[in-house]
Amino acid sequence: MEKIAIFPGSFDPFTVGHESIVRRSVSLFDTIIVAVGVHSGKQPLMSVASRVAMINEVFRNDEKITCASFEGLTVDFCRKVNANYMLRGIRTAADFEYERAIAQINKKMLPEVESVFLLTNPEHTPVNSTIIRDIIRNGGDASQFLPEHIDITKYL
Amino acid sequence: MEKIAIFPGSFDPFTVGHESIVRRSVSLFDTIIVAVGVHSGKQPLMSVASRVAMINEVFRNDEKITCASFEGLTVDFCRKVNANYMLRGIRTAADFEYERAIAQINKKMLPEVESVFLLTNPEHTPVNSTIIRDIIRNGGDASQFLPEHIDITKYL
Amino acid sequence: MEKIAIFPGSFDPFTVGHESIVRRSVSLFDTIIVAVGVHSGKQPLMSVASRVAMINEVFRNDEKITCASFEGLTVDFCRKVNANYMLRGIRTAADFEYERAIAQINKKMLPEVESVFLLTNPEHTPVNSTIIRDIIRNGGDASQFLPEHIDITKYL
Amino acid sequence: MEKIAIFPGSFDPFTVGHESIVRRSVSLFDTIIVAVGVHSGKQPLMSVASRVAMINEVFRNDEKITCASFEGLTVDFCRKVNANYMLRGIRTAADFEYERAIAQINKKMLPEVESVFLLTNPEHTPVNSTIIRDIIRNGGDASQFLPEHIDITKYL
Amino acid sequence: MEKIAIFPGSFDPFTVGHESIVRRSVSLFDTIIVAVGVHSGKQPLMSVASRVAMINEVFRNDEKITCASFEGLTVDFCRKVNANYMLRGIRTAADFEYERAIAQINKKMLPEVESVFLLTNPEHTPVNSTIIRDIIRNGGDASQFLPEHIDITKYL
Amino acid sequence: MEKIAIFPGSFDPFTVGHESIVRRSVSLFDTIIVAVGVHSGKQPLMSVASRVAMINEVFRNDEKITCASFEGLTVDFCRKVNANYMLRGIRTAADFEYERAIAQINKKMLPEVESVFLLTNPEHTPVNSTIIRDIIRNGGDASQFLPEHIDITKYL
Repeated sequence: MEKIAIFPGSFDPFTVGHESIVRRSVSLFDTIIVAVGVHSGKQPLMSVASRVAMINEVFRNDEKITCASFEGLTVDFCRKVNANYMLRGIRTAADFEYERAIAQINKKMLPEVESVFLLTNPEHTPVNSTIIRDIIRNGGDASQFLPEHIDITKYL
Repeated sequence: MEKIAIFPGSFDPFTVGHESIVRRSVSLFDTIIVAVGVHSGKQPLMSVASRVAMINEVFRNDEKITCASFEGLTVDFCRKVNANYMLRGIRTAADFEYERAIAQINKKMLPEVESVFLLTNPEHTPVNSTIIRDIIRNGGDASQFLPEHIDITKYL
Repeated sequence: MEKIAIFPGSFDPFTVGHESIVRRSVSLFDTIIVAVGVHSGKQPLMSVASRVAMINEVFRNDEKITCASFEGLTVDFCRKVNANYMLRGIRTAADFEYERAIAQINKKMLPEVESVFLLTNPEHTPVNSTIIRDIIRNGGDASQFLPEHIDITKYL
Repeated sequence: MEKIAIFPGSFDPFTVGHESIVRRSVSLFDTIIVAVGVHSGKQPLMSVASRVAMINEVFRNDEKITCASFEGLTVDFCRKVNANYMLRGIRTAADFEYERAIAQINKKMLPEVESVFLLTNPEHTPVNSTIIRDIIRNGGDASQFLPEHIDITKYL
Repeated sequence: MEKIAIFPGSFDPFTVGHESIVRRSVSLFDTIIVAVGVHSGKQPLMSVASRVAMINEVFRNDEKITCASFEGLTVDFCRKVNANYMLRGIRTAADFEYERAIAQINKKMLPEVESVFLLTNPEHTPVNSTIIRDIIRNGGDASQFLPEHIDITKYL
Repeated sequence: MEKIAIFPGSFDPFTVGHESIVRRSVSLFDTIIVAVGVHSGKQPLMSVASRVAMINEVFRNDEKITCASFEGLTVDFCRKVNANYMLRGIRTAADFEYERAIAQINKKMLPEVESVFLLTNPEHTPVNSTIIRDIIRNGGDASQFLPEHIDITKYL
């Protein structure tokens, strides 16, 4: 059976920490779909289309990695793309509690999809999108926290 | 002295986890008042009246358990109904930190009311109202996370 | 039905934090049995008999509170004394994780006994027996962390 | 080299816990600047000017302690006032995870500024501005959680 | 490249929680080696040989799953068996902190081996070998926490 | 008043993480005494004398940093050397809970000494002496986790 994993998130923006999780786990799966969730409500930094475009640029040389956006429940998107794994990174104990609740509920709703976790590398532990977004909004230089060779200003 | 406990929360919606905490602790108290707090601000899934109606249906055969809504501080509601205990469930370490702060502040403001905690059963650990609300809003089937025999659509 | 709670622990020594939990919850139960668990292995500061004697002195004026020692599983001691509740205090998130595992396993082994938790008062949060034991062993003055009017040297 | 620390926060309101951190660390530094961050978005309880005025009243007899407001990134404010330290208090493990991410990112952006932490005294552990703000908004008496001799109603 | 994972642990005893992690992840790998670490020091409940025998019985019908014991560093055992993944289960935030440190150190020592994590199912969260060992040592019935159809008394 | 800080610990062995905390905080104090606590009980990897010798080598060019060993309570050692600060590093939320209890108890016993904390740099988060000791005992190469230019074999 083909191993299809989705890597769901808001990715506003996609950081060097996200990139690292995908690259470290690519050998585990046949396909990884970076899945940009569309949430109404809070004002995003980047449009969904910009996020998808930027992620596609990051992985433009990786045939196994694609990017798509989705609305609604993550389990419904898994059904739609025939994913059998969800991939997530965990940085801290606070992340862990949240990820556990989500993974256990998803497992109850769609038992055939397994959630698989990698722990972020130490140097990526403090990198989270909320902090990075705040730096960019205040005109700071966030390039060290973003994938290499990516010019975020092209996507804002 | 009569033992009156309130079980305060938003209950948007009231889940199978909430129900379990109330049922497991009913023998400790003479009366448990499920107290639906009214918070302005974020857009709720269910109206306060619907939440009270649903909770009343869940416990329609339990004379010791009633439901009411309240505005303002929980300690003021305790004074109003002569409660001497607050009952709360704790699922995770993240919950714990928040519950501890609230309980300790309440104790400072109203020392004669004691906060009593039960820990959720393992199978209810991931069930929290935020996740369940998200499932319902996206058209998913959340019935396994709600009290048995309750048709949530009647209350939306 | 009579409400009998055990308050199990090592109590080497019994601290002002333990005392507070018992006193704050005494109105909830008809009887509280402070249950000193006998563990082989690590070298204790106080003998089990000394711990029982000291706890009895602390509560000598409280008819509802007794003290006993026990060997073996806590659930077996509950069966022996017909307890229907276990009482525990929680100080920190680290405590919480441990207490949750124990309570959930006990619930699986003896479903009719419910574990009930109080959170320690803020000033007692740092008081744990390991640290207090270390102070006493090194000749420090630990009296502010022990029940009032108790002379620990009588029990060493 | 002069030791200049900023103590950044929202301080809506400034609590007895914040005051304690500043007073306990004043001997470590030549100057402490309590730095009120201006955030757009959520509706504050107190205006920024009121917060600065209240903090100035609290420390009116302390020459080493001043107060200022700032917009934008905390590292940029450090540069502006030549601060070489950031001072922060930590209450709980949940605080810790957040503080660690912020401190590590700030260190990456401005390596010459060191973040220094004190842990709150036990009695201040549950005091956080969100809870205190909620008490004040609901007409409760929060004076025991605010600096002594401060009449908050003057600043609302 | 063949995907070989080791699942290292003490497994004293191997529980229903361990079994679940292995079964849920078996489709991810070509081979899973349950690797029983030999630690001097604390007195075990079961001999290493008994642990291996019991685990072999649990997975006697699963060709992809084998069991072996090892001494020394886990990274050295990975080198010996050409493993490219380490598999671990995480139950709680307390587990998480420990697992993260181990995984990050292992990654530094042997970068080509990736640690992959599954989170335990809710009902297995409280099941840890220390508690189960304590039940067995005190003559309690731990069968509900052990793999089905396994008679632990054969292995003690 | 002279600012004298002790940096207490077991330091078995002293790691690159410990070194970083001392170097990052040296500008805050007039003197830092690295204080090697002597604990009976568990079998150490290095003798106390070796640990002191190694730490003295690490800081041989830093006049403000000295090293000493002590027995008994840390607060008693503070009194002996007239320290007015204790310096500690915190890596994780698990560390935090322990450090908080120790710091708050020390503050109760010796209020004039303040505990000051730095958070470890991200790359040092997983480095703890227990894991490093285990690597060395099993013949692994731990040099990347130890202070630069230190040959640990000289001290074993």
